[in-house]
Amino acid sequence: MDGVPFVFVRRGDLVESVHRVAACAVDVRGTVVYELGDIDAPVYLRSAAKPFIAAAVVESGAAARFGFGARELATMAASHNGEPAHVDVARGMLERIGLDVSALGCGAHPPSYEPAAAALAASGRQPTALHNNCSGKHAGILAMCVHLGLDPAGYLALDHPVQTRILAFCARAIDADPASLPVGVDGCGIPVFAAPLRAAALAFARFATLDGLAPGDARALERVRAAMAAEPFFVGGSERFDSALIEVTGGRIVCKAGAEGVHGDALLREGLGLALKVTDGGAGRAVPPAAVALLTSLGALEPAEREALGTFAAPVVRNVAGRIVGRIEAGLSPGADTREPAGTSYGCA
Amino acid sequence: MDGVPFVFVRRGDLVESVHRVAACAVDVRGTVVYELGDIDAPVYLRSAAKPFIAAAVVESGAAARFGFGARELATMAASHNGEPAHVDVARGMLERIGLDVSALGCGAHPPSYEPAAAALAASGRQPTALHNNCSGKHAGILAMCVHLGLDPAGYLALDHPVQTRILAFCARAIDADPASLPVGVDGCGIPVFAAPLRAAALAFARFATLDGLAPGDARALERVRAAMAAEPFFVGGSERFDSALIEVTGGRIVCKAGAEGVHGDALLREGLGLALKVTDGGAGRAVPPAAVALLTSLGALEPAEREALGTFAAPVVRNVAGRIVGRIEAGLSPGADTREPAGTSYGCA
Repeated sequence: MDGVPFVFVRRGDLVESVHRVAACAVDVRGTVVYELGDIDAPVYLRSAAKPFIAAAVVESGAAARFGFGARELATMAASHNGEPAHVDVARGMLERIGLDVSALGCGAHPPSYEPAAAALAASGRQPTALHNNCSGKHAGILAMCVHLGLDPAGYLALDHPVQTRILAFCARAIDADPASLPVGVDGCGIPVFAAPLRAAALAFARFATLDGLAPGDARALERVRAAMAAEPFFVGGSERFDSALIEVTGGRIVCKAGAEGVHGDALLREGLGLALKVTDGGAGRAVPPAAVALLTSLGALEPAEREALGTFAAPVVRNVAGRIVGRIEAGLSPGADTREPAGTSYGCA
Repeated sequence: MDGVPFVFVRRGDLVESVHRVAACAVDVRGTVVYELGDIDAPVYLRSAAKPFIAAAVVESGAAARFGFGARELATMAASHNGEPAHVDVARGMLERIGLDVSALGCGAHPPSYEPAAAALAASGRQPTALHNNCSGKHAGILAMCVHLGLDPAGYLALDHPVQTRILAFCARAIDADPASLPVGVDGCGIPVFAAPLRAAALAFARFATLDGLAPGDARALERVRAAMAAEPFFVGGSERFDSALIEVTGGRIVCKAGAEGVHGDALLREGLGLALKVTDGGAGRAVPPAAVALLTSLGALEPAEREALGTFAAPVVRNVAGRIVGRIEAGLSPGADTREPAGTSYGCA
């Protein structure tokens, strides 16, 4: 599993660090329209699989049973910031299904969004599992358990029937035998499967077109896609690339990031799916410029949209004192982009 | 600037992410005894240059003038955690030279060591430039300004005489013409030069042997080396790889990390210098296992020492709930190390 140099971190006149990227774009027939690096090696999709997990919840009937609307569905598909609105939605979902935070197996971590973490700390309260960026997904899986009459206890286990059903849904989306999928454990405890970028891109092409799917699966994915497009804040939150990309394109691109440098994009206008992996896992700084560069090369982003995504497309590197000392660029070779949008701070250590 | 796959992040049965590493070990004659990847491309040494910057301060006479002892010299060479003891040393250095925190140009950031950052936040106090991991280096450079009768104002500028003198010292250590060195701006604002790993390794071989240097430079480097060996806590701090490696080897290896995946090692017993760069900049998780693997392959670490460095050598990957879900291994191919030392947590997002 290795890629091709694609994201260049410049300091002064030199390229200081290089992130290699593997990527694949396919149409709904599986025809590869773009490839970079190894697109046939298995990649854990991590949270990029969440839209499909959320759709499995919808397909089960649980979302209709408990009256989940767009915010709930978007939060089920989210890696959210743990901002108060995200926490409220996840808590509300648990209330509707008659459970509380103690049912969540994802573990507690401080809100991913620093101002939300600081506000929580200042309030003297501790982070709970509701602040976990995966709390919406877990609440959705618990809803599916309750709806299907399955014991919510042990819902994290690979052999729990709810996970079997979710994995089957995901396997249908990527056209694979579920028994053939390598499975690991995700950061939040649930099973996480691996698929080649070629297959992940196909799943996102189907998410974009709703073609090539069983009718129930297509309807479920359509509801999740509409929810993510309608409520992009609940897919991520403040200052998050996924939320910005969905919002800037008016939902013409619906996307989801995963840990360790994964990104999946449904290109509705082009009828394409894109899947990429920063092979070193450097998600925070490398995924947004890589995704924007690939989407631009696929003709999926208008110039004004790329401009509106400037801070994600070509971040500057600032030092501790705020001085611009470098920039991050994506492309097959280091370019000469001289714009200076707002950027990211890095220290020395 | 690219490397060879060397650090493998495993999850379940798969390699999830790969960090490429370039590395070079040389003896004091510059003979390459080990190489990996491109060793002739320029690499910003970042904080790995600090022992040489500290030695430039010593060589100027400033350290003797102001009575700096081992803790001060180690802190000048440090990327410290901002723990109270580190802050006290940096503050004390400024007091001895008649300046205060306002003279530091490095900018403020919270202590790098999370418990120290939490304690500072709980106290209601704000981080200052003294907490910056580079505050000792900056205090040392200010001492050099005062000692040489140079205006401390503007000491960050490349054309300030103190920087010219420091760059000349570093250039002598790596056997380069200072005018030929690419220079950028470091995270803390001071000029940072780039050198091929081959040259960086030579500088660390000289640091190990004190051969091939002008007498004054050798004496200064010897004092810094002795200080780092005597006070490893002040080179980094609690739970820091550099401090642990120096301590575990009883100062037989004196090392310094730099941002963006750089590490330099003086191997006193072997008379070698090692320099490595994780080419994607993934310093936090990739440098310690890479450095331990390379030092082991060079015969520089005894088995018991490697064992004592277990959490740095082969960290496990834990999820948010603390469950072991993977491991990090270094080597030319993924191995089958089945030990389970304490590890690092990663979430999903």
